[in-house]
Amino acid sequence: MTNWQVIAGGVTAPKGFRAAGIAAGLKPSGAPDLALIVSDSEAIAAGVFTTSQVRAACVDYCQELLEERSSARAILCNAGQANACTGEQGMIDAISSAQASENALGLPSKSVMIASTGVIGQRIKIDALLSGIPTLVNELSSEGGGRAARAIVTTDLVTKSIALETQIGDRPVRIGGIAKGSGMIHPNMATMLAFVTCDAAVSGQLWQDMLRRAAAKSFNQITVDGDTSTNDCLLALANGESRTPAITAPGPEADTLEAMLTEVCIHLAKAIARDGEGATCLVEVGVSGAMSNRAASQIARTVAGSSLVKSAIFGRDPNWGRIAGAAGRAGTPFDQSELSISLGEFVLMRAGTPQAFDRSAASAYLKQQSERSSIAMSKTLLKSTQQANDLVPEDEQALLTRQSLDIESLAHPVLITIGVGDGPGSAKAWGCDLSYDYVKINAEYTT
Amino acid sequence: MTNWQVIAGGVTAPKGFRAAGIAAGLKPSGAPDLALIVSDSEAIAAGVFTTSQVRAACVDYCQELLEERSSARAILCNAGQANACTGEQGMIDAISSAQASENALGLPSKSVMIASTGVIGQRIKIDALLSGIPTLVNELSSEGGGRAARAIVTTDLVTKSIALETQIGDRPVRIGGIAKGSGMIHPNMATMLAFVTCDAAVSGQLWQDMLRRAAAKSFNQITVDGDTSTNDCLLALANGESRTPAITAPGPEADTLEAMLTEVCIHLAKAIARDGEGATCLVEVGVSGAMSNRAASQIARTVAGSSLVKSAIFGRDPNWGRIAGAAGRAGTPFDQSELSISLGEFVLMRAGTPQAFDRSAASAYLKQQSERSSIAMSKTLLKSTQQANDLVPEDEQALLTRQSLDIESLAHPVLITIGVGDGPGSAKAWGCDLSYDYVKINAEYTT
Repeated sequence: MTNWQVIAGGVTAPKGFRAAGIAAGLKPSGAPDLALIVSDSEAIAAGVFTTSQVRAACVDYCQELLEERSSARAILCNAGQANACTGEQGMIDAISSAQASENALGLPSKSVMIASTGVIGQRIKIDALLSGIPTLVNELSSEGGGRAARAIVTTDLVTKSIALETQIGDRPVRIGGIAKGSGMIHPNMATMLAFVTCDAAVSGQLWQDMLRRAAAKSFNQITVDGDTSTNDCLLALANGESRTPAITAPGPEADTLEAMLTEVCIHLAKAIARDGEGATCLVEVGVSGAMSNRAASQIARTVAGSSLVKSAIFGRDPNWGRIAGAAGRAGTPFDQSELSISLGEFVLMRAGTPQAFDRSAASAYLKQQSERSSIAMSKTLLKSTQQANDLVPEDEQALLTRQSLDIESLAHPVLITIGVGDGPGSAKAWGCDLSYDYVKINAEYTT
Repeated sequence: MTNWQVIAGGVTAPKGFRAAGIAAGLKPSGAPDLALIVSDSEAIAAGVFTTSQVRAACVDYCQELLEERSSARAILCNAGQANACTGEQGMIDAISSAQASENALGLPSKSVMIASTGVIGQRIKIDALLSGIPTLVNELSSEGGGRAARAIVTTDLVTKSIALETQIGDRPVRIGGIAKGSGMIHPNMATMLAFVTCDAAVSGQLWQDMLRRAAAKSFNQITVDGDTSTNDCLLALANGESRTPAITAPGPEADTLEAMLTEVCIHLAKAIARDGEGATCLVEVGVSGAMSNRAASQIARTVAGSSLVKSAIFGRDPNWGRIAGAAGRAGTPFDQSELSISLGEFVLMRAGTPQAFDRSAASAYLKQQSERSSIAMSKTLLKSTQQANDLVPEDEQALLTRQSLDIESLAHPVLITIGVGDGPGSAKAWGCDLSYDYVKINAEYTT
């Protein structure tokens, strides 16, 4: 199931996809802020959206579009204004953004899905957006994945992009993805967005089901601060350009495709957790022995989201009591006499009883995982806008590649392993530590 | 319903209660760490306990005791060791603590309820505790409420104590309470404990129902970091010594008693929130117009617990977007076009639409509420153990009174008022801001 390889290109790695990212003047900083991903042919489309009661217009727009039809040609995303809490005008702006893209691309109505991220309560700078669309369409390229990844970020320190390739039958099939998000955010830069492209042929219902399950194992299992945004969405297009036989029913081909889709989503989700505001490391919590996968998911998420556990990791403190406490309050029953907890290779608790372990070595493990991850990540930090804007196109492409969080940055999580019994349920969740910088980033927006 | 007055004495204000608090050598610091509250006559007993799957032995002990009978004579509480995650030995220690108290007090078995707080995974220092019990019993006094309040704290900056008096028929009825808790805590000082005494006569089932409802409106509506402890408990004794007619059924007398009990619990809960680790202010979130009180509670708790809202308040940022975001993700449906949000007297959002408001004045309001609360609180900070130990008894009593968080400290919360429609449901929740010091307190326990 894991016979895939990492390839370059992000969302433009799969066949028949082009993308672009430009600075259209939506962000006050002048950084790239408008991205477009286009499939050369009609693509099966699926989406997973925020469950918040307070939703941006783009979320409602896409949900309605996908209820009408399960295909689309493109995704337009603006950064700078979230277009959430903007009333009826918000929907008018959303519709005109979509229509302008459809016109410029020569596509029929309801062909373009839209997403927004940025300040809640601010309308899209619609004039700037509409003026930018011709340039954006003009710059579409099968090498544009990196620029699209760059144009959707807000407070992210790195871009998030990946592409994987596998064989289905004797032909290569590719899935690419980009994402943004690093908390929910200064000043109100609210949102996790992810866009996935695929060149397999797959039926609409199957693709939607796969995406929902993949999201449950990835984006729904990360936590930076527990806050869900008004604009969160995951959109996925599958255009069949790989010319493999259509996958229309469960079976080995569907399993292969779903496993690779899940892996793409997990990579992007981990990258978001690693880029969590103020984070110094990625934390992975694995839970097994629960009554169900759902119960395991809940325990894993609760531990990964505990402010006390997160503070302890920032303090390099192998504090099993806080892990046990968080597992206990997750809202899913287990017998505390069967609770076991490990941190990396250190067994902290077994059968509900604290174990003797080398505390300074365990603390050193926490320090080491953070350092390894930070060194890898520091190589990929986004350079200043000015610097990026001054580069010639070839260098820009190289820079975009470097700016994307690489596999190495995610290869050294702090591992927390929890057993809660002998049930069949298991799950993973990802988060980050809670540092002074989290508070600094989120408190120091003074009006 | 609110015709009560604040009186002195804490848990020893109601008739027929004595209390004591001593330093028995359980805490390494030598600070007071063993408290006893005794009713002169058999009292109706009720309890509300942590819902965590990982529970301390004392929690299981008290739950079993209350399942067997709904009365007790005393509450013994130790601070220093939580006696959680201590396996079978934990229960043996719990039982011997209770039995030693019963013997010293000349009471039958199962007369004493017990509670522990302190480091998870550490057994009670049982020899020190058993050696301390004769002194503790010897020091029982009807003026001992302050010393008991002092002996149950761990990392608290202030003690939490209150007593209220009302009339039922033509006789005074009193309820007193003490509590501890300030987060869940360094180094693993895990727990919220509260003990309530009452001199009304009330039937067991009614008292338990009242306590459960009061806890739902108070202790279950506060959040410091969202972490529930292994040892949380609320125990309440009602001994009938006021000689008022027994309250055995719902009616005006029961309503009066329940309202006053709820007020005692709310005061103690707010005091815990205000004393939250690193907090600079108390935050009160009021929600109305929800479909049910339960739905309103959930929204209020979610907003009060949002790290982003808490960080914004620390940054004196009137960030309505984060409040709207947290309300939206609370898991209870409402129509976002009916969402209204106020901060103090500033209307930030009405009918789902952001309102123009004076941002600098709103920011100044946040600053002012914090300053007022901090000035009041700084008068009551716990002095060093050494200082307290050097005092003669009379001065100590005065000090204990000052150390208890007074009403004034809770009189200036940051008020967030949220409307979500025209439903009948309303609720309040309390929390505090998220400061650098929260991270510092919770990260800097290095092993």
